[in-house]
Amino acid sequence: MNHGYDFPRIQFANQEEKQEFSKFPTKTGRRSLSRSISQSSTDSYSSAASYTDSSDDETSPREKSQVNSKGSSDFCIKNIKQAEFGRREIEIAEQDMSALISLRKRAQGEKPLAGAKVVGCTHITAQTAVLIETLVALGAQCRWTACNIYSTQNEVAAALAESGVSVFAWKGESEDDFWWCIDRCVNMEGWQANMILDDGGDLTHWVYKKYPSVFKKVRGIVEESVTGVHRLYQLSKAGKLCVPAMNVNDSVTKQKFDNLYCCRESILDGLKRTTDVMFGGKQVVVCGYGEVGKGCCSALKALGAIVCVTEIDPICALQACMDGFRVVKLNEVVRQMDMVITCTGNKNVVTREHLDRMKNGCIVCNMGHSNTEIDVASLRTPELTWERVRSQVDHVIWPDGKRVILLAEGRLLNLSCSTVPSFVLSITATTQALALIELYNAPESRYKQDVYLLPKKMDEYVASLHLPNFDAHLTELSDEQAKYMGLNKNGPFKPNYYRY
Amino acid sequence: MNHGYDFPRIQFANQEEKQEFSKFPTKTGRRSLSRSISQSSTDSYSSAASYTDSSDDETSPREKSQVNSKGSSDFCIKNIKQAEFGRREIEIAEQDMSALISLRKRAQGEKPLAGAKVVGCTHITAQTAVLIETLVALGAQCRWTACNIYSTQNEVAAALAESGVSVFAWKGESEDDFWWCIDRCVNMEGWQANMILDDGGDLTHWVYKKYPSVFKKVRGIVEESVTGVHRLYQLSKAGKLCVPAMNVNDSVTKQKFDNLYCCRESILDGLKRTTDVMFGGKQVVVCGYGEVGKGCCSALKALGAIVCVTEIDPICALQACMDGFRVVKLNEVVRQMDMVITCTGNKNVVTREHLDRMKNGCIVCNMGHSNTEIDVASLRTPELTWERVRSQVDHVIWPDGKRVILLAEGRLLNLSCSTVPSFVLSITATTQALALIELYNAPESRYKQDVYLLPKKMDEYVASLHLPNFDAHLTELSDEQAKYMGLNKNGPFKPNYYRY
Amino acid sequence: MNHGYDFPRIQFANQEEKQEFSKFPTKTGRRSLSRSISQSSTDSYSSAASYTDSSDDETSPREKSQVNSKGSSDFCIKNIKQAEFGRREIEIAEQDMSALISLRKRAQGEKPLAGAKVVGCTHITAQTAVLIETLVALGAQCRWTACNIYSTQNEVAAALAESGVSVFAWKGESEDDFWWCIDRCVNMEGWQANMILDDGGDLTHWVYKKYPSVFKKVRGIVEESVTGVHRLYQLSKAGKLCVPAMNVNDSVTKQKFDNLYCCRESILDGLKRTTDVMFGGKQVVVCGYGEVGKGCCSALKALGAIVCVTEIDPICALQACMDGFRVVKLNEVVRQMDMVITCTGNKNVVTREHLDRMKNGCIVCNMGHSNTEIDVASLRTPELTWERVRSQVDHVIWPDGKRVILLAEGRLLNLSCSTVPSFVLSITATTQALALIELYNAPESRYKQDVYLLPKKMDEYVASLHLPNFDAHLTELSDEQAKYMGLNKNGPFKPNYYRY
Amino acid sequence: MNHGYDFPRIQFANQEEKQEFSKFPTKTGRRSLSRSISQSSTDSYSSAASYTDSSDDETSPREKSQVNSKGSSDFCIKNIKQAEFGRREIEIAEQDMSALISLRKRAQGEKPLAGAKVVGCTHITAQTAVLIETLVALGAQCRWTACNIYSTQNEVAAALAESGVSVFAWKGESEDDFWWCIDRCVNMEGWQANMILDDGGDLTHWVYKKYPSVFKKVRGIVEESVTGVHRLYQLSKAGKLCVPAMNVNDSVTKQKFDNLYCCRESILDGLKRTTDVMFGGKQVVVCGYGEVGKGCCSALKALGAIVCVTEIDPICALQACMDGFRVVKLNEVVRQMDMVITCTGNKNVVTREHLDRMKNGCIVCNMGHSNTEIDVASLRTPELTWERVRSQVDHVIWPDGKRVILLAEGRLLNLSCSTVPSFVLSITATTQALALIELYNAPESRYKQDVYLLPKKMDEYVASLHLPNFDAHLTELSDEQAKYMGLNKNGPFKPNYYRY
Repeated sequence: MNHGYDFPRIQFANQEEKQEFSKFPTKTGRRSLSRSISQSSTDSYSSAASYTDSSDDETSPREKSQVNSKGSSDFCIKNIKQAEFGRREIEIAEQDMSALISLRKRAQGEKPLAGAKVVGCTHITAQTAVLIETLVALGAQCRWTACNIYSTQNEVAAALAESGVSVFAWKGESEDDFWWCIDRCVNMEGWQANMILDDGGDLTHWVYKKYPSVFKKVRGIVEESVTGVHRLYQLSKAGKLCVPAMNVNDSVTKQKFDNLYCCRESILDGLKRTTDVMFGGKQVVVCGYGEVGKGCCSALKALGAIVCVTEIDPICALQACMDGFRVVKLNEVVRQMDMVITCTGNKNVVTREHLDRMKNGCIVCNMGHSNTEIDVASLRTPELTWERVRSQVDHVIWPDGKRVILLAEGRLLNLSCSTVPSFVLSITATTQALALIELYNAPESRYKQDVYLLPKKMDEYVASLHLPNFDAHLTELSDEQAKYMGLNKNGPFKPNYYRY
Repeated sequence: MNHGYDFPRIQFANQEEKQEFSKFPTKTGRRSLSRSISQSSTDSYSSAASYTDSSDDETSPREKSQVNSKGSSDFCIKNIKQAEFGRREIEIAEQDMSALISLRKRAQGEKPLAGAKVVGCTHITAQTAVLIETLVALGAQCRWTACNIYSTQNEVAAALAESGVSVFAWKGESEDDFWWCIDRCVNMEGWQANMILDDGGDLTHWVYKKYPSVFKKVRGIVEESVTGVHRLYQLSKAGKLCVPAMNVNDSVTKQKFDNLYCCRESILDGLKRTTDVMFGGKQVVVCGYGEVGKGCCSALKALGAIVCVTEIDPICALQACMDGFRVVKLNEVVRQMDMVITCTGNKNVVTREHLDRMKNGCIVCNMGHSNTEIDVASLRTPELTWERVRSQVDHVIWPDGKRVILLAEGRLLNLSCSTVPSFVLSITATTQALALIELYNAPESRYKQDVYLLPKKMDEYVASLHLPNFDAHLTELSDEQAKYMGLNKNGPFKPNYYRY
Repeated sequence: MNHGYDFPRIQFANQEEKQEFSKFPTKTGRRSLSRSISQSSTDSYSSAASYTDSSDDETSPREKSQVNSKGSSDFCIKNIKQAEFGRREIEIAEQDMSALISLRKRAQGEKPLAGAKVVGCTHITAQTAVLIETLVALGAQCRWTACNIYSTQNEVAAALAESGVSVFAWKGESEDDFWWCIDRCVNMEGWQANMILDDGGDLTHWVYKKYPSVFKKVRGIVEESVTGVHRLYQLSKAGKLCVPAMNVNDSVTKQKFDNLYCCRESILDGLKRTTDVMFGGKQVVVCGYGEVGKGCCSALKALGAIVCVTEIDPICALQACMDGFRVVKLNEVVRQMDMVITCTGNKNVVTREHLDRMKNGCIVCNMGHSNTEIDVASLRTPELTWERVRSQVDHVIWPDGKRVILLAEGRLLNLSCSTVPSFVLSITATTQALALIELYNAPESRYKQDVYLLPKKMDEYVASLHLPNFDAHLTELSDEQAKYMGLNKNGPFKPNYYRY
Repeated sequence: MNHGYDFPRIQFANQEEKQEFSKFPTKTGRRSLSRSISQSSTDSYSSAASYTDSSDDETSPREKSQVNSKGSSDFCIKNIKQAEFGRREIEIAEQDMSALISLRKRAQGEKPLAGAKVVGCTHITAQTAVLIETLVALGAQCRWTACNIYSTQNEVAAALAESGVSVFAWKGESEDDFWWCIDRCVNMEGWQANMILDDGGDLTHWVYKKYPSVFKKVRGIVEESVTGVHRLYQLSKAGKLCVPAMNVNDSVTKQKFDNLYCCRESILDGLKRTTDVMFGGKQVVVCGYGEVGKGCCSALKALGAIVCVTEIDPICALQACMDGFRVVKLNEVVRQMDMVITCTGNKNVVTREHLDRMKNGCIVCNMGHSNTEIDVASLRTPELTWERVRSQVDHVIWPDGKRVILLAEGRLLNLSCSTVPSFVLSITATTQALALIELYNAPESRYKQDVYLLPKKMDEYVASLHLPNFDAHLTELSDEQAKYMGLNKNGPFKPNYYRY
């Protein structure tokens, strides 16, 4: 899950990050590599991660022996007794993920994943549980692990284990646990994965390094993160990608929802939950007018803020003008601003110099992909005092008493301080499921050892599965119209270059 | 100029239209072909085309002998005496086209078009005059003719002729005049074109048919219309394109301005000028949620209309949902609607059956590219009475007295009933000028005998030339940031697939 | 009809205007008085006033003898033969004025105006024809004249005359004609008015001066204009008002429609029709944030303009802030603005000094009530050149070539350059009809010799008659709810001070 | 503080509530009366009420002996040691309440409250602390108590006590504590209040009942709640009000901020914090289109929801139409809705019958003043299962598995599930301070024993004190303009009936 970035290229510019899978790091090196490449694996994760209190139980799950009600113990989780609570969470999530349920129903008869053995590495949440159980319903066998050491919802893991999925994950894993869990997923006697579903590339990395022979049977990799996708393109360029891979991160639907539509709501939510600020009349500068910036600007303007924009790209700048935002340089306006929001994907967009010139009470936060958009490091100097006033909210205090309100220490606001609606996650999960089905069932000749985008027709199918949520009624082309337009009545309806 | 279409594929679906340039039509055949292929050449054109009354002068310009103040008579226009009036119109247009003026200034020293001999075929308006005079300022020699028999502003043509441009055009040409003018432009002893600027493809067609040898010297064709671009792609596919061609129609900037931003304003303008309707509280269905539909919906909603949408494409439908529009089938809602607006590019989207079910007073109009979106032909039946109540406004009256208000007989509302701001035309004209400069100066190896989009960097340059109109200040990347992003500080800033 | 003002007090500040009816002016004096007091009587009026060309007929209607098809000649109009054309216009207007038609139907049985003899003085348009014919349908006898010497639609007057209404009005009356027509309406042997419907107060004035005895039988005056209402309040204060009067100008519904809702649309329409300007990205300052200013700001912002506001009242200024507009002083921003729009009701809001500092191409116009908001007089100096480029559009040119684009010479933009939708006029006309019914039927004790607002319940009734246009379904209070709220189930639903 | 109601009349319709102060209830009776009349005194209050954990200290403050650093013990609070923490909270609140600070500075020299002895009863929060300390800075002596048994921020109370204010309040008072604290405030030997600042009327009630002689010295009462204001009007009608009272609840500024502007933001915030729902594409019905409903509709529409409205008042219904909302009856649409929001002030707007017809997952909540808008009682039947899924969120489950998501059990969503920005509270607090100054300094003849609204000029002054927050620059009238408008240059600028 990588919400809030605009532009993939930003990720791997420095050299350390550019190293590819062939350089297997030492444990220490790996840790830092893991942190920089697979950012999401250690980022703390804000969703109400754990519902029940199990703080009394300090035993490592690896040392526990647990059995589910059917007698299986092929899993490793915090506490199998939390299964019932987790089941309810999954049921609640299902209500907002009816597209997946609908996919289950449509495809259940033909079992398009019969025979598929999927090894997966994602956040373990109620929403991914809905995905996993959909894959099972379509015929797959699944082994699953967490892509982030903090984000596992233990109750959900328990519910999955109870229902028979081999899941290896708990909230608060050590790094050693992290790789141990991945290994347990892959390295199972008498069971060999033929599909990989990854989020961040750590699972793929592990298989490459430890069990390269597995790729002989693997029909494809489905990857959803910016980071993981970048790794795959690197492998592909280096001629080392040995199976087809599907980049679901860049599908239109996912992009629009993760960026424009989701950020339009989460910018407001993140700011309110942290600062209770009133938007009406506030002067705001949004740095960057890509999809994320567009979402932020639209929402803030709608709520009565007076918004201006900074841009480096003249085309986006012209869009900002036409959408009614003044295009300025940050240093021209920073003194007057009540809020400064970064959405560029670039680094040091807000510098110490800018921060020095902000007025008392200015709120600074980041909605872009990069955690370095605000030069937070520059604020860690002796003359400035930091005061934590709430979770995720720091007052940085200048010698003259001026306070700048820094949110989430410059990390992604919407991952840190708001939640992602199940509906957005449903888009991604459905795309992942369809990508698996496509790769698993495609004739061998269709995909080479390269990275692919989901065919537009399947993108359109993902969208169509979500329309019933809105009681939206699609119009069908008549034969005559289809002929006139040169289109198949079932799509695809647009050329690949269409901008939406 | 092709405002208001969404999707180029729509144009050439029927067989007659698909014929390419090799089939030179008979005169009669040509007329109908001309009408269908080069739609714009005979469409009546709404802009206040002629400012002064010259109805007393019925002599054909071809039979007149006129000389400008410098003694030249290498032109053929209505009346050279109108030059002063035309000059003022050009000056007024220059105020909204400062990007071109700025291009003149920036490039005037180096004269990037020195030696260029441009033959052009476009609407002859104050705005194209600004383009032509920019080309001259940059070093080009120009001969010019009209791409439409109705759209020439005679005064502007006079001003151009007076300033030394060889222009052959007047308002109300016959078809014979039309081809005669083109011929006079191309066929000039001692002068041979080396660049072609076309709008609709008729000039290109003529050169192909009559003076194919001209192409030996031509460095490139710049084409701005959907129709002309399609013809070029057909030629290219057929292996008959013998020079590089630049498709300026599909550049991002032009597309966004011609469709989203321009239609957002012209839908309101077109409806008001024709019907004086109040938007607040009106129920409207917009058929099609591409760029044009998005522009229409956004404007109508902002003015208090209650808008719903029809779509065939689930992705666009999902966007409509997220933007707050109900997605419906036309027949579900048509009875309740106060207005029905088509923007699909398809045919028979509004059928007689729909029209029969509309309520009294319903307004029906078309903002899409195709003139057949509304099945107007089906309304020409004996039981229905047509009553023209204003220019471009017909009441179609059912036997029970019900009136449906049909605008522009189903043709493009914004071409027929509103005007296009000079600023929008400036975007196109600047793109055309840059495309000429690029093709004229590119090393021979850069472009083959194919159709190209303007390089993204030049698209960005077009945008940057227009930013001063908005007093917009672009941010520059620092060296460190450019390196981090892997970008050149001067752009291009986005990959080609970027969706904006 | 007085669209676009915010605040009634503005009207009568200078002494000349403050004189009340008792000082009957000499003819010359009267002319200027007439112009200043009853502004609307000589303002040129933009609505497509005359549809058919009758320029060949120069005979004054006063010298013609005309008879309608029923043999009556108790009218004086341009040409009775235009009746059929006018009838169609009335029928078209009826479509957007269904509230009046509905009132006709509901009240037709009981004929609440049976016995009423109404003398009226309003614009003579298709919309007022619908009002007059409604009054007739409800039982009234009507004699009618025009409140403006330019605004009469001759065809409509013909249709009214043909249907039996005694109408005295034509387009292009002299001032002498104006008073002659009023006199003919009032001074009819054997017929004496018992109700007065006035727009501007000229009719009331005439009766006061010439036929004061008429007031003995008159049950009330209904007045809709700011000017006329002010005159009535002056009379009342002076103890000279001898019958009850109903101020329909200040009813909530009329105010919101004439100001907020109507201006929200007409600002865009007026600017487009005159200048074809593109709104996107334009910097605009709106002077005054009353209802008119709110409407203008909302529409311009929605279309992508960047809008700021000037205000003198801190409460309105705070509203502007919360609605997302910067509150500035005009001289701080005037240099950067693309458009300056006045809506204050005050004078000299835009001074010559401001005009001197505007940038080339700046558009200046007035949406407020006062024609002196822009100090246009200050622009009539020798060093400035005026150039009329279109109807209602002047370029004022400074010695350095700078052009300021002045619309309607600073008069009301929406009266001069756009039209008022029938729906808005329907609100006013329905309010007038109900006011007549109320005054005519009220028990004598209900109204004294004073000026009244329409009872809130009737305001609500006007609104309810217009809801079917929007297919709006009102909820009814249950008995229990009505009791809980302390309300009558049929209204009124709000206290008088409610702000809406 | 009474946010979110529309219409004051709603409060006192049932008989029990209508009893006035003279009927002093028995203790039990009083409890229920207190609950119904002075709703806010027992409503649980969501603001982060207590920052530090003091759960270990179970001793009642009444039994503790505490002394502040100056040796005073004339207060009763939870823990004086929390003063430092509370001080910081007050300082943070001051940043968003600069209007009060500015009032302090402007009036500090003249000490307009010198000699004033104010007894106050409000929520004890950082924001009221800023008010209290402003009163002190202006010369007043203050004794203070809480108007709600849950809402006191103990740390803030400590900071006030430390700074010398005699405060009697803690979080979690019993009802007996509540009245004891009030008594301790009023009943102080050697000190007699001459001003009362009340929120809810409980303090006023107590003085009436127990110490009526105090009123001999009291110059006036300032009351901010709907409930308290209603009580005062009742007293006034009954001829029992013995001092002037100022109704600050109905001042324009307070109304717009508490209702329109505040609810525009809190509806989104309340829904997100409780349900994480995505707004885009959701179908929402808002019951009631007063100020609260207008705020809710505007925000939800802006975020992409598809909103319709129910109304009983045709004028508000017509406004909804013009603002672009379909006006429907609840039972026509309830089946399709994703959310149902009440803002009517009425009871049983959403009935069991409606709830039975809602679809699975429908969210139901109340933004209106009355806790009975949703008939929650009807859901407490055996066949329905209630499941608390989060704080303030219940799933009500029908026998067929359908879940309706009920927020805050039908109580005010924005009080229960979101916070009120300091800026909104600043408006109220500044109004209260000015009302005290006005009543304390007014010549005796100015105010009788009646309930008054703040003079418009002071309303305007409150607004002007808040403009610097937005860097808003007010325009001043020139002498000539003021004369033309008939206005004083310093205001008031509008007549009392102006609707804003």
